[in-house]
Amino acid sequence: MHDVMPSMSREVNHLKRSVLRDLLALAVDPTIISLAGGLPASEFLPLDEFRSCLETVLRRDGAEALQYSTQHAPLQEWIAGYMGRRGVRVGPEQVFITNGAQQGLAILSRLLLDPGEQAVIEQVTFPGIQQVTAGRGAQVRQIPTHLESGADLEALEAAFRQEPRPRLAILVPDFHNPLGVSLSAEKRALAAGLAARYGVPLIEDDPYSELAFSGQPLPPIKAYDEAEMVFYVGSFSKILAPAVRLGWIIGPASMTPQITVIRESLDLESSTLLQRAVAEFFARDAFGRHLQPLRDANRERCETLLAALEEHFSGLAQWSRPSGGLFVWARFPQELDTFALFPRAVERRVAYIPGLAFTLDGSQRNAIRLNFSNLRPQAIREGIQRLSEVIGEHALSGA
Amino acid sequence: MHDVMPSMSREVNHLKRSVLRDLLALAVDPTIISLAGGLPASEFLPLDEFRSCLETVLRRDGAEALQYSTQHAPLQEWIAGYMGRRGVRVGPEQVFITNGAQQGLAILSRLLLDPGEQAVIEQVTFPGIQQVTAGRGAQVRQIPTHLESGADLEALEAAFRQEPRPRLAILVPDFHNPLGVSLSAEKRALAAGLAARYGVPLIEDDPYSELAFSGQPLPPIKAYDEAEMVFYVGSFSKILAPAVRLGWIIGPASMTPQITVIRESLDLESSTLLQRAVAEFFARDAFGRHLQPLRDANRERCETLLAALEEHFSGLAQWSRPSGGLFVWARFPQELDTFALFPRAVERRVAYIPGLAFTLDGSQRNAIRLNFSNLRPQAIREGIQRLSEVIGEHALSGA
Repeated sequence: MHDVMPSMSREVNHLKRSVLRDLLALAVDPTIISLAGGLPASEFLPLDEFRSCLETVLRRDGAEALQYSTQHAPLQEWIAGYMGRRGVRVGPEQVFITNGAQQGLAILSRLLLDPGEQAVIEQVTFPGIQQVTAGRGAQVRQIPTHLESGADLEALEAAFRQEPRPRLAILVPDFHNPLGVSLSAEKRALAAGLAARYGVPLIEDDPYSELAFSGQPLPPIKAYDEAEMVFYVGSFSKILAPAVRLGWIIGPASMTPQITVIRESLDLESSTLLQRAVAEFFARDAFGRHLQPLRDANRERCETLLAALEEHFSGLAQWSRPSGGLFVWARFPQELDTFALFPRAVERRVAYIPGLAFTLDGSQRNAIRLNFSNLRPQAIREGIQRLSEVIGEHALSGA
Repeated sequence: MHDVMPSMSREVNHLKRSVLRDLLALAVDPTIISLAGGLPASEFLPLDEFRSCLETVLRRDGAEALQYSTQHAPLQEWIAGYMGRRGVRVGPEQVFITNGAQQGLAILSRLLLDPGEQAVIEQVTFPGIQQVTAGRGAQVRQIPTHLESGADLEALEAAFRQEPRPRLAILVPDFHNPLGVSLSAEKRALAAGLAARYGVPLIEDDPYSELAFSGQPLPPIKAYDEAEMVFYVGSFSKILAPAVRLGWIIGPASMTPQITVIRESLDLESSTLLQRAVAEFFARDAFGRHLQPLRDANRERCETLLAALEEHFSGLAQWSRPSGGLFVWARFPQELDTFALFPRAVERRVAYIPGLAFTLDGSQRNAIRLNFSNLRPQAIREGIQRLSEVIGEHALSGA
């Protein structure tokens, strides 16, 4: 038997898993206000429209919709058109459909990176990115990410210059999980340029960009990629529904055969039924109608969260001020241990994710990730009120 | 960039991929009689019932059916009950739901086997099993499988005795793909005993056992596993519908946390919508009603295929006589090269899978795999008629 996360310390792994176990148990407890989730707002999932799409597909396509199938061409075409509107010119044959963004990351890490090789990731990042690098035995070089400006690209270049040369880097360009920050257009162009200059494939993990509260999202890093060194990973989980379990990879067309072989070895293919239903959803032009209310609700919820943080933690904590996405990151004074505090918070019926869950080294003990998307404003206010009581009583009072 | 199939020769890989490409192109050509597929009969997919299950679930469970979710407990419970009826006593918490059997294989190979370690597989087997062993850089020891009696367990024991000790072995107990053969109850007990005695985890890949033409399937190898050394992998693809993309692993409960971490790193989770719809299908007791007509149709089609082989190839070829599943394996005289013949067969509008696709070394050039499940009897007769003309004209005439 092998340790599945060989390059993380056992202690940090143990802590992270205990957080996960607690959070899973909490998820089903309605008395807890959970700011810990990463779920899109349940009230805005397109329940009736998607049920109707499934019915249309099963009546129209019959048994084909329940069989094995090649990737569903109309969905590839919609995604290619969507990427084109975002400044990435690709043909449908360059779109590789996956089970969400995590499978895109898993496939690309298998394609590009062997155990023992070098990978560059952010010091504070989504655990799924840690799993496909450190979790597969890669040597991980970490770069800092600034709350105001995102990933430190000077550090990225320094990591690219080291020998042995990294085999891949992974960045989250928009509404970073957990930090909430986005990269400027200038930094996107620079990141693509660094990948080209140093010959290091760059994976852009982008599940959140369509969740901008207003306006159009910036072009992705892939839009600046003239050297075909950027692999874009998208997802429908946060903008349509997690249970469709669909996302996509945009890479060089020459890589499609290898990507196909890896994907078949993992789970053969994505459900053609769900692919067809999502394509039908887009054919009905339901996407814009669906997305705007979701963005509006997210904005209201984020504003509520920021106002509550201001009310209770002004002068005590710092936090990100995202313009989209699902998360706010808050940093407390060094002496506050958000992991140690977690059981007290749960006693008071409020939950968050302790910062250490987003690190490989157990740092960020004074930080927390707060989700605003799947809670009504009143619950957000109440949750932050409870949190401020817990922190006031147990953490900063010297008790 | 890394070769994704390092221990296969490039030539065999190239040949196998060219077969795959041809077969994909053929799959959409209605003028071809394809005996190459592995699809369940389209006419017997439970189209109306499953559409109704999806509708029930979406109306009953609402947004929960489109969200992220833990594994769906009612489906785990149904599977635990099913396994119990087959002689495997497990609790629902020991059932780990996957995206089909292939993901079960991929997860278990990540759990048990590192690149460079030893794995035991059958010389002639499903390419998905080759991918999770040789395709991940394992050193592969191969054992023969007999058309009449299945995997050679003396060879298995010999492989288990070698040093370094193998880290896993994979067998297909029922209606082997591509050979069609099943293991006797005695050999199942023996296989479980060998895994226990030599301490080698044995993966039992069992997508086909419910496709016995008549009677009850034998207990799986897992039913004889007193040492918790057998990992059972099941699938709903062939017995319900491929597009549900669901299967399961039964392993030791102590392994569930590691299995969960690996699975999350690959694609987080299976669609809760599809899990709920399949659970609803079983709650309606629709399974038995669905399965019997499918088995009856498969038996008729297999009998048709065997009769056509008898008519055209008696004395010339040998073939398996399965009592269930989807496939018949036919071996021609050594001088017949079924790979070289493939383009001629396609010209004559008939397709099969050349035997070399099921090997790592490009052997079995004189064999073919024939599918009977997704063709009507008349098409099967016509397909074998065409095949006999191709073989008569081009292969055995010395031309």
